[in-house]
Amino acid sequence: MPEKVLIYSRFPKAQMVRFGERFELLDTAGKRPNDVFAPEQLSGIHAVLTAGGTPFSAEAMDLMPKLGAIVCYGTGYDGVDLAAAAKRGIAVGHSPGANAASVADIAVTLMLATTRRLLAADDYVRSGNWSGLKPSPMMRPQAGMLGRKVGVYGMGEIGRKIAARVAGFETEVGYFSRSRHDVPYQYFPTLEALAEWCSVLMIAVRAGADTNHAVDAGILKKLGKEGYVVNISRGSVIDEPALIAALTDQTIAGAGLDVYAREPHAPDALTALPNVVLSPHIGGHTLESHVAMQNCVIENLEAYFAGKALPYAV
Amino acid sequence: MPEKVLIYSRFPKAQMVRFGERFELLDTAGKRPNDVFAPEQLSGIHAVLTAGGTPFSAEAMDLMPKLGAIVCYGTGYDGVDLAAAAKRGIAVGHSPGANAASVADIAVTLMLATTRRLLAADDYVRSGNWSGLKPSPMMRPQAGMLGRKVGVYGMGEIGRKIAARVAGFETEVGYFSRSRHDVPYQYFPTLEALAEWCSVLMIAVRAGADTNHAVDAGILKKLGKEGYVVNISRGSVIDEPALIAALTDQTIAGAGLDVYAREPHAPDALTALPNVVLSPHIGGHTLESHVAMQNCVIENLEAYFAGKALPYAV
Repeated sequence: MPEKVLIYSRFPKAQMVRFGERFELLDTAGKRPNDVFAPEQLSGIHAVLTAGGTPFSAEAMDLMPKLGAIVCYGTGYDGVDLAAAAKRGIAVGHSPGANAASVADIAVTLMLATTRRLLAADDYVRSGNWSGLKPSPMMRPQAGMLGRKVGVYGMGEIGRKIAARVAGFETEVGYFSRSRHDVPYQYFPTLEALAEWCSVLMIAVRAGADTNHAVDAGILKKLGKEGYVVNISRGSVIDEPALIAALTDQTIAGAGLDVYAREPHAPDALTALPNVVLSPHIGGHTLESHVAMQNCVIENLEAYFAGKALPYAV
Repeated sequence: MPEKVLIYSRFPKAQMVRFGERFELLDTAGKRPNDVFAPEQLSGIHAVLTAGGTPFSAEAMDLMPKLGAIVCYGTGYDGVDLAAAAKRGIAVGHSPGANAASVADIAVTLMLATTRRLLAADDYVRSGNWSGLKPSPMMRPQAGMLGRKVGVYGMGEIGRKIAARVAGFETEVGYFSRSRHDVPYQYFPTLEALAEWCSVLMIAVRAGADTNHAVDAGILKKLGKEGYVVNISRGSVIDEPALIAALTDQTIAGAGLDVYAREPHAPDALTALPNVVLSPHIGGHTLESHVAMQNCVIENLEAYFAGKALPYAV
């Protein structure tokens, strides 16, 4: 008899195939577990699979009194109340680094697309305005990457991979992180100092109470009117209304965003802007990173059911 | 009295400002010189400024019997009849490498945007389909860059810069070029072998008779249905109708194009496709590369008028 695993978040079916081959899956499809399953079903659950950004409160944990492991699909675990889990002796696992290359790639994609105005460029060709020799103010030459100062906020695995990629574009790379790392980039002791220095701010910091709205109106003002912000971390790191205001009144030049304050909702005021490039939280969304994340999930669940410590514990 | 320079191609005024401060400019705005200027004006012309892709025939040279220097703005000089110029003792100059970083950046931008389906991603967010939880076949996970085989066709300055950037994305890089270079990438002896091996073919070869339509239906077939082609060189290197056919019947997965067979014309059959990212020949179009290209133009013209050899001769 395969072990039971409750699917707590809403996942595409294709991502669950390998788990279904190994475990009996009870899929909530993102609904509240007690709206989908009877108490006697929930009382038999020892392990859940969730997405790190999905809120997972103490109350939700208490719906499953035998719960012993919360396994997050992906790097993040910001939705899980870690203190409540610890208090209940519930182990929390994730997939560290499994999607780092893929997320770093999207960060660079968004940086290049915003600074080189790729959406306007594609539209200029497709609309026929280029062949019609119609002038386009959006197509005026912009600063490129050569010699550009790029700031990376957060120097975990994703931040390092972003920095390594960006350095290849003949840029200067600086970073701010709680502590100085052994990396060949200029360290800034505060986020303010980094924003003042750089013209592209890449947000790669882990979401949490200490980074909530860390990028606010003040930081955006320091970034300045030639500045861009790219966020592939979590929407909570940016004060989203302040960002929309800064983009609208051109306090900053533009933004590339893969994450939002309330996904999958992207505010109308944001989606109406020409100076942003928006993607639907697809940073970790490549074939190879899904395989790597699934490997971590399977190793975590199999270790738990074998009575061992999670190999990829938070 | 400043020396006279005839502007042979159509350039934005902003790009001519620094030349106007040093020389007396006779601007054809891209028209035939003899339609704009009288023979006695043309007979006083010793130097012209042109764009490398603009056809510059023996007949055009003969409109200016005292012509001694043709200076191209940019790296390319494929439009200039070099044999005709040599026969008339006309020196030809260009701006080697001045825009290489900027062009390499656009190549990588197009590679990332096509393989990660950035246009579809942005549209999915802006249309409200993401927040409406509408499934999008275009947003299914794709292969990312990690471990991807990227082939670079041409290993000049732009090809090297493309390879260096792409290697930073944890890819495997291979190349084909007339001769083997001292670079840390796998060499392929033919374009066919490179296309067979790689899943993204980056075209960075110089345009000319030997590379005309080098990327044809056969090469695209070898690239295959998971393959992408990116062209930032010249439209002439690809057989454009064969490319459109390969994109339409999904012989290849997609393309990122900055250059076209007959610019500024991009065929309707191409602009209607969802699996392409198109930019209006903006590869070298950054503030810093314009400054660098203008520096080369000025140095070439000043050397010529001082009776010296062109410092950046073809």
